[in-house]
Amino acid sequence: MPALSSVQAIVFDVFGTVVDWRSSIIRDLSAFGAQRGITVDWTRFADDWRALYQPAMDEVRSGRRPWTILDVLHRESLVVLLGRHGIEGLAETDIHHLTRAWHRLDPWPDALPGLARLKTRYIIGPMSNGNIGLLTRMAKHAKLPWDVILGAETARAYKPLPESYIRNAALLNLEPAQVMLVAAHNSDLKAAQAAGLATAFVARPTEHGPGQTKDLVPSGDWDVFAVDFSDLAAKLGS
Amino acid sequence: MPALSSVQAIVFDVFGTVVDWRSSIIRDLSAFGAQRGITVDWTRFADDWRALYQPAMDEVRSGRRPWTILDVLHRESLVVLLGRHGIEGLAETDIHHLTRAWHRLDPWPDALPGLARLKTRYIIGPMSNGNIGLLTRMAKHAKLPWDVILGAETARAYKPLPESYIRNAALLNLEPAQVMLVAAHNSDLKAAQAAGLATAFVARPTEHGPGQTKDLVPSGDWDVFAVDFSDLAAKLGS
Repeated sequence: MPALSSVQAIVFDVFGTVVDWRSSIIRDLSAFGAQRGITVDWTRFADDWRALYQPAMDEVRSGRRPWTILDVLHRESLVVLLGRHGIEGLAETDIHHLTRAWHRLDPWPDALPGLARLKTRYIIGPMSNGNIGLLTRMAKHAKLPWDVILGAETARAYKPLPESYIRNAALLNLEPAQVMLVAAHNSDLKAAQAAGLATAFVARPTEHGPGQTKDLVPSGDWDVFAVDFSDLAAKLGS
Repeated sequence: MPALSSVQAIVFDVFGTVVDWRSSIIRDLSAFGAQRGITVDWTRFADDWRALYQPAMDEVRSGRRPWTILDVLHRESLVVLLGRHGIEGLAETDIHHLTRAWHRLDPWPDALPGLARLKTRYIIGPMSNGNIGLLTRMAKHAKLPWDVILGAETARAYKPLPESYIRNAALLNLEPAQVMLVAAHNSDLKAAQAAGLATAFVARPTEHGPGQTKDLVPSGDWDVFAVDFSDLAAKLGS
């Protein structure tokens, strides 16, 4: 386990850990539907959209498909789901607007105060499968005070591939052990730890809605366990 | 010339345009020399260091050398100059500390207020030949409120190669004409304009010291000419 005193940068999984993607997407889609008189189950639509996330990235991770950013994968999944839910005749500008719902996600209530504290002592940034443009616009929307935007696109590899963690640490002139990943997902932390990073689990027990059954508790030997970002900042001495 | 109303991101040359590298390097080296009792002409040392900047990048631009980040080039040039100035016996930690002087540059006095205004309306970031780690640490040192860190390392190409501008625009999901480069150097703006970017010249008539003879005035048909970053913010409606 890395010595925490050597950590210089704290990087974050974003979807689910920093922002409440599910409530935000449901709200965004529902507003669009209300405006256009489209009545479908937007909660189910949001969950269906997220369910296509890992399979789409798997095509790229496996090498079956060349490097493709998440905005493109989100759009392709959206088009599939519009058909499946019987929504027809949307204009190109509508599809663009809906794809960009992933740029307009709101933070969990504790995220901003915690990040402000961590920023005084560490380099902070996303280490997300979102692309740079997505993460940059989300940060402006949600007022996330990142020092740097890192993720799959800067590594040209999707998490949890080891190079996604190792290359991003190197982009900060850091060894993996000098970087801590914060995530609400045990699988992400497991891969980061295997790549040599320090790890912190923050519980987000309603990320997937009221009936969530996974990632309720830490399932590995992570360096830090925090109930929210304020607790995380305190445990990291900031 | 791109229509300015389409500009969504303002990106900046950094060394000389945002930060006063020369005064900062002289100050940093002089402090080190005073502490160690090393007496050399640190102003000349700083100018000599910067003089090795373009030749070092030319090796990479030309393809004679594989991709190499600026921190490595800075360090190599430093080692050459230490020998040339008769400074011997420095420890590895000293050489590391001195190389990182480029991470500790101070902003021109008008930079922070101007950037704060521009940030309310545009995505702002560096588009610098500095590497990500350098630019991130400089931003923390100088309190530069970047939304994103872009530059040679995100494009894997040094300015003024066209791909350095075009790839970084694409990383923001933008066309070149939706991005404006701000620089105190006409040559940088010329290359950016040729790549399709909007351009703004900000005069920094003492970047190279009191006897500066170049880049005192705009020499091309740039979209905006500003005397400082406050003027720039006003001219860009923010």
